[in-house]
Amino acid sequence: MTEDLEFEGSNLTRTPSDTGTSVSIVPLGGLGEFGLNMMVYETENDIIVIDTGFMLPNADMPGVDLIFPDIHYLVERKEKVRGILLTHGHEDHIGALFYVLRQLDVPVYGTQLTLAIASGRLREYNVLGKAQLNTVAPGDTVELGDFSAEFIHVTHSIPDTVAIALRTPVGVIVHTGDFKFDMTPIDGKMSDIQTLARLGSEGVHLLVSDSTNAERPGQTPSERSIYGTIDNIFQKTEQKLFLCTFSSSLHRIQQFIDLADVHRRLVAVAGRSLLNNVRTASELGYLKLNPAYLIDARDVSMFKPHEVMILSTGSQGEPRSALSLMALDNHPFLKVEQGDTVVISARIIPGNEKAIGNVVNHLLRRGAKIYHERNADVHVSGHGSSEDLKLMLNLLQPKFFMPMHGEYQNLMRHAELAESVGIPSDNIKVAEDGELIQLTSETCEVFGREGRSGRVLVDGKPEFELEDIVLRDRIQLSEDGIVVPIIVLHSDTGEDSQQSAVSSSDGQPAADNDSKTGLNAGQIEIISRGFVYMDKSEELIEEAKEITLRVIRNLSDEQKHETETVQDEIRGALRRFFSKQTQRSPLIFPVVMRV
Amino acid sequence: MTEDLEFEGSNLTRTPSDTGTSVSIVPLGGLGEFGLNMMVYETENDIIVIDTGFMLPNADMPGVDLIFPDIHYLVERKEKVRGILLTHGHEDHIGALFYVLRQLDVPVYGTQLTLAIASGRLREYNVLGKAQLNTVAPGDTVELGDFSAEFIHVTHSIPDTVAIALRTPVGVIVHTGDFKFDMTPIDGKMSDIQTLARLGSEGVHLLVSDSTNAERPGQTPSERSIYGTIDNIFQKTEQKLFLCTFSSSLHRIQQFIDLADVHRRLVAVAGRSLLNNVRTASELGYLKLNPAYLIDARDVSMFKPHEVMILSTGSQGEPRSALSLMALDNHPFLKVEQGDTVVISARIIPGNEKAIGNVVNHLLRRGAKIYHERNADVHVSGHGSSEDLKLMLNLLQPKFFMPMHGEYQNLMRHAELAESVGIPSDNIKVAEDGELIQLTSETCEVFGREGRSGRVLVDGKPEFELEDIVLRDRIQLSEDGIVVPIIVLHSDTGEDSQQSAVSSSDGQPAADNDSKTGLNAGQIEIISRGFVYMDKSEELIEEAKEITLRVIRNLSDEQKHETETVQDEIRGALRRFFSKQTQRSPLIFPVVMRV
Repeated sequence: MTEDLEFEGSNLTRTPSDTGTSVSIVPLGGLGEFGLNMMVYETENDIIVIDTGFMLPNADMPGVDLIFPDIHYLVERKEKVRGILLTHGHEDHIGALFYVLRQLDVPVYGTQLTLAIASGRLREYNVLGKAQLNTVAPGDTVELGDFSAEFIHVTHSIPDTVAIALRTPVGVIVHTGDFKFDMTPIDGKMSDIQTLARLGSEGVHLLVSDSTNAERPGQTPSERSIYGTIDNIFQKTEQKLFLCTFSSSLHRIQQFIDLADVHRRLVAVAGRSLLNNVRTASELGYLKLNPAYLIDARDVSMFKPHEVMILSTGSQGEPRSALSLMALDNHPFLKVEQGDTVVISARIIPGNEKAIGNVVNHLLRRGAKIYHERNADVHVSGHGSSEDLKLMLNLLQPKFFMPMHGEYQNLMRHAELAESVGIPSDNIKVAEDGELIQLTSETCEVFGREGRSGRVLVDGKPEFELEDIVLRDRIQLSEDGIVVPIIVLHSDTGEDSQQSAVSSSDGQPAADNDSKTGLNAGQIEIISRGFVYMDKSEELIEEAKEITLRVIRNLSDEQKHETETVQDEIRGALRRFFSKQTQRSPLIFPVVMRV
Repeated sequence: MTEDLEFEGSNLTRTPSDTGTSVSIVPLGGLGEFGLNMMVYETENDIIVIDTGFMLPNADMPGVDLIFPDIHYLVERKEKVRGILLTHGHEDHIGALFYVLRQLDVPVYGTQLTLAIASGRLREYNVLGKAQLNTVAPGDTVELGDFSAEFIHVTHSIPDTVAIALRTPVGVIVHTGDFKFDMTPIDGKMSDIQTLARLGSEGVHLLVSDSTNAERPGQTPSERSIYGTIDNIFQKTEQKLFLCTFSSSLHRIQQFIDLADVHRRLVAVAGRSLLNNVRTASELGYLKLNPAYLIDARDVSMFKPHEVMILSTGSQGEPRSALSLMALDNHPFLKVEQGDTVVISARIIPGNEKAIGNVVNHLLRRGAKIYHERNADVHVSGHGSSEDLKLMLNLLQPKFFMPMHGEYQNLMRHAELAESVGIPSDNIKVAEDGELIQLTSETCEVFGREGRSGRVLVDGKPEFELEDIVLRDRIQLSEDGIVVPIIVLHSDTGEDSQQSAVSSSDGQPAADNDSKTGLNAGQIEIISRGFVYMDKSEELIEEAKEITLRVIRNLSDEQKHETETVQDEIRGALRRFFSKQTQRSPLIFPVVMRV
């Protein structure tokens, strides 16, 4: 930036200098998938980041525990990063914060509840001590280099959620985060439509908005709309009542607790994350809960079934969650029994249908009555549907529009909605993770890709990244198994004279031992896992050993000294053999040991 | 059966003799899952089987190609089996026929189209020659020992579908197969409500009915109801039009072909199964298709985009289907391009959401317009919903009721529907695969389990069954990978005198070599797949080798001679080490080689 551009919020018509005053936008996650939300806004001098989410893996990523956005882009520009702004306390927006703060030492800005929830994981990973957490309230503005960020309250399934209006050298960018327009919110705090409307009148240059429910027609009903259904279920339930939701759905939990009070049931909480959130939110006043009515989940059996309500995790059929354990009667102290009722009050996330279905089947076998979003109105989304998204567009009247949060199909649908309210299609940019978008006062263009963007897969310790190649191996292993032929090659001259030299070698063949090198036939082992049932396949394996032996016998002495040649020949021969015999293609991994 | 019980359809009140005239019902598949439909009806003398379906695996069964019902129950009672009756030509009802006929040499009864479709696979697996296929028409009755089977036409998504009324020594059993009550069927052939009603007046002892859509409220709309939507899509599409459905959905295909005619598009067919079914059905007159309008899919590019309609497979996002290949621009001769329209006219089967979503995202990136059941009325089910199921119950007024076809939650819901129309709950039996149900003229009871029932998993050749243990290994491999430490143990006395004995051994330690047995430190290899990226984990692996070496050094000479002890000790030490270092739990499979 060669000129000292004075910035005024409402003065959006100024032409940037030829040297190109612009803001770069780099989505590191959340544009092309659900979760992993992380957006970079960058000027020549400064970078700010909105949200640092993680994502949970699908079934096509075996053994992956967590997925983080790849943050090389930020690490390489470390000195420019002025701050991380958080919109709300959901894991798809804050779950990667500890991972990011390990690599970047920058201040974090968020509302009270958001930071309180984020702190839990920071503490767990020993990052809390050094974290610079700054609490903001809706209405606050923070100055961060070229950016000025105003926090605007919006309704969502967790309290204390904000959208962010960024004043930048090229104009105002509104980044909505997750939102809905709940006209009767549980905590009485509406989305700040007045501020959004004021921004709209002053002139919004770019709107970046939540596409999660872009494909749903109409308006998302108020969180309060499920109260009646749940109330009815309370009335009909004569035994224990299990209410299952996300641990962060605090408005939902508030309604459950209120109803427990009305129907005189004590409240037990099962699941660590749920217990943590209930505790944090009550301490901060975001959840109104009479501690006298809270009982330890271990004590549930001491009460009559109709006297308790159990809040539980496991709405997505997660195998180690409280609900899954109860479904299989494996929970250490909670039981679902004949006459109990279980309410799964959460969205059935695509990809989890099978897991949730299995849990439901098992619970039904135990004699429980089950309610879920497909058979009763026990859930309502925290994200705005088509009409809500149009309302946001119409309040802000942005010049440019960029959909975020969703798979490509959701982003595309949101783009169609924007066009339907009058945004010219040339001003709508559907970008995906890793693309670089350049925003000037006149243009908004995708101008390239950031090569190092992508995903970091974590299995086990977060510092132990799972490489793509390992994941590919796992997928192949899972489909066809592995066969490891082990061949011990050693000099076998039939004369004792060479033996001492060989036995004292370091496992490499002596270079001068170029003749009469042989193979002891007893020294072939074939092991396998996930390929065939070994106990029933002795013949197959014996034959494979014979083939391996034959391959080695047919090699010249020189070839035998080339480990790779030996491996390649064995691999090829066994691949053909197994394919013909079984039509399976296990990973074949020959090991040549030399003594 | 000690008395010669005369059977009359309407005389259902007779008491069986004390020796117990009864019919056993053994569900070998389809009660507890979708697919795998196979039901056994058995008297003292005779067995008949209705349907022989297979099932496609879920993502939690890596590398499994097909799933068949376990038919040990039938094989063990081979001489009693009088016939296999098929209700219709869907793979979940006929897909395992070749597998069953390989083990049982019994006659098969089905309608013309059903047998024609079934013959394809029988031919493929060389079973067609010996198969005894008997064509029946709706209205026909077949006598099979103690059973008499009447075939009754019902509407479904494929023509020539039948329900079966079995006259048995204890009364009439109606087995619906898949059905809906389509009041305006594409081929003009209604479900035979008159016959069903007549059976109901005469007295039905047991109804066994399709639960697929038991959880859906209301009535399933007519197949014809999608015609308008598809017509509209034809009108709006200016470039190529791809219509994607199941290869067996012949009523759907008929409508597509009719519309292609109306809108003057030529028809190309992509996908082998689709091409086979279209050919078979047209030859038999079940599909009305002017061959002059059919073009080879290879020639699509020779026509203008608005002149062609392409019928395609791949509605479930199957990776090797025509649609998936086109989505990734990998199809040998078909391309989806900017301005094309793709209609996925099929149910999104639970578990396939992710795969279908990926295909949709890729097609959108190519610039295509996409319609699927979630954004347009382009699909209607072939299975009756709640009200249709109640109609079937009311037409037949059965004494006993047993839901089939579905997961436990669907069966339970169907049971509730039966209760709602007045079947006493004591007369409703929710059974699952492998249970034995005993039906007498007075009772219907689950009285045990058939131990050998279950599922046969197939990977590769159908004769090569995949054992559960192999599948479990695959799942573990996919989650954590495998580590194979290979240890060569050999006598290492430091004196040359022993060497010749060792080198000529067969790999087993000499029993008398009980002292000074050592280990050459260079003889440890550790290989792994799917665990860590080996190139970046040299240190970890080196340390693991050190630990392995230390474990062996700490073993007594006697312990070293016990291969299992060596393996257990190494496995334990490495498991602790890897868990601490990486928090991962690979399968550890030590191999001890002795020279």
